Amino acid sequence: MNDLVPRALRGEYVERTPVWFMRQAGRYLPEYREVRSRVSFLELCRDPDLACEVTIQTIERFACDAAIVFSDILFVLEAIGRPFHFEKDEGPVIDNPVRDAAAAASLVRPDVAEALPDAPETIRRFRKARPDTPILGFAGAPFTLLCYLVEGGGSRSFAHVKRLLYIDPAIARKMLDLLADVVGDYLQLQVDAGAIGVQLFDTWAGILSPQDYLGWALPAAQRAFSRVSGAPRIYFTRDSAPFLEWLPETGADAISLDWRVDLGAARKRLGPIPVQGNLDPTVLYAPEAVIRRRVRKILDAAGSVGHVFNLGHGILPDTPIEGVEVMIDEVRRFRV
Amino acid sequence: MNDLVPRALRGEYVERTPVWFMRQAGRYLPEYREVRSRVSFLELCRDPDLACEVTIQTIERFACDAAIVFSDILFVLEAIGRPFHFEKDEGPVIDNPVRDAAAAASLVRPDVAEALPDAPETIRRFRKARPDTPILGFAGAPFTLLCYLVEGGGSRSFAHVKRLLYIDPAIARKMLDLLADVVGDYLQLQVDAGAIGVQLFDTWAGILSPQDYLGWALPAAQRAFSRVSGAPRIYFTRDSAPFLEWLPETGADAISLDWRVDLGAARKRLGPIPVQGNLDPTVLYAPEAVIRRRVRKILDAAGSVGHVFNLGHGILPDTPIEGVEVMIDEVRRFRV
Repeated sequence: MNDLVPRALRGEYVERTPVWFMRQAGRYLPEYREVRSRVSFLELCRDPDLACEVTIQTIERFACDAAIVFSDILFVLEAIGRPFHFEKDEGPVIDNPVRDAAAAASLVRPDVAEALPDAPETIRRFRKARPDTPILGFAGAPFTLLCYLVEGGGSRSFAHVKRLLYIDPAIARKMLDLLADVVGDYLQLQVDAGAIGVQLFDTWAGILSPQDYLGWALPAAQRAFSRVSGAPRIYFTRDSAPFLEWLPETGADAISLDWRVDLGAARKRLGPIPVQGNLDPTVLYAPEAVIRRRVRKILDAAGSVGHVFNLGHGILPDTPIEGVEVMIDEVRRFRV
Repeated sequence: MNDLVPRALRGEYVERTPVWFMRQAGRYLPEYREVRSRVSFLELCRDPDLACEVTIQTIERFACDAAIVFSDILFVLEAIGRPFHFEKDEGPVIDNPVRDAAAAASLVRPDVAEALPDAPETIRRFRKARPDTPILGFAGAPFTLLCYLVEGGGSRSFAHVKRLLYIDPAIARKMLDLLADVVGDYLQLQVDAGAIGVQLFDTWAGILSPQDYLGWALPAAQRAFSRVSGAPRIYFTRDSAPFLEWLPETGADAISLDWRVDLGAARKRLGPIPVQGNLDPTVLYAPEAVIRRRVRKILDAAGSVGHVFNLGHGILPDTPIEGVEVMIDEVRRFRV
């Protein structure tokens, strides 16, 4: 098996910097859009055969050094009793947001293997179909899931979830504990199914002041990661520059950075922990020379040890495929 | 005149830390909603009598140490040839976004005094009506205005504006130069009308990588500020933790911080420049004791010199007035 990604995530020597990228199975690919013309996004996630098919697509096209299982972070909410759906141009909508003690008490602690079977099954099928390519599992981080659960979807101000933190801290803590335990067990389930690493997406942690990050998002991520062993654990945040030094305290084995921090400066603040990242996904719109320069800058700043090349956020749906090809080619050319 | 704010913005000794807050004339106030029940937001901005009335409201209620003129950052876009309107629950919509050379060539360089008369006139009326209270002027920063101009409104990915930066840098530069010159002259017009300071809102600068901030947003803000003299210039950004050290290079006399950075840590990185900020606006939902603790933490971190207390972002429309009262009371109690 190509073991560049797991070795880089453990900080071991690698012959060349490996590359995969967030949402690499997605709408920018015509072969993905073809599958999606027949089924909805959620149907696709819930069908391990089709999910495996689209997970393989990027590997076929670009020979990325890892796949990531095709799924969605919100299935955990469904598993604890809060179904959701997608509204056109609106993103996810949680049918019945949780904002008080009574609603919080109605949440359930599921049997994780029973409630969340699809991603592990997709991972098992991928392992059989492509034994030479490693696959990563993932989940939403507890605080990010709490945001969706309380806001009922995306938000500009995140006023509902913050109000809960300030007014009913005990309820918030209880929900975060539940989410952390379910998320942790879910990640372990994916490791047991054959994932060579797992990534926790703390997309909204950056809306918090440093004090609140330390009080809420960090210990919840810690609790989730503490239930996972046997594969490297990657922690992704956005807008984490104010509290970068603290991220290794989540218990992560590697830190995935968005594009807003300079990777060289970030490594100095993070210490020796391996990193992933961090090209601005919009750079893939740029002319070839600009893409190559930007990719090279990141590679030079990271050096050859403990770096998995990635975008700083999920690839955008209208990204030109040629941009992706140039990015991957430039990563492959890199030798320190 | 109460000169605590201008003195604090110049880093001079003050008897107590002054306080005003962003969007202090706004929907959380019943007396503001009463005025708005008769006119639209844009009608209100364009009527110096009414705009002066709502500017005064917060002063009457809370005795803030400064007012800020009631207006909107987007009038500058109208002045260069791109009208806009507000859509319910959607925010601003620019009727005809600018994304190519032909569209950029159609922008006009206006006579600023003629094209943007309302905020200066509101400032003059306020000075007459409340000679004892200082009033601040403001404008959107060039890069933030470019975002609206190119995206046509708000955005999640800011893909259009970034595509322009990467694909047509010469056009982007030309538009930023135009915006910077108009914004600079507009700020000077407000100073000439009696504003004791002016604030540049670079709301979207934080979407850029540090390299792109340095290449685009920073020199544009610099160019705008270089046209302003006679009153302290305040620079506000969000998510600026990755490049905090560079903010004084805008030429600003003071830096206004969002709530995502610890004010003590930020001062160390910024050096001796005065600061404004930085309470998370959602803290005003919290119980009294929490508000007092959070306000006090900021005051302690800032010390007594070179600090104007403020929120880290505009106050939210459903903020309880009691929360604002507690915040202001706690600031007033502070003595170093």
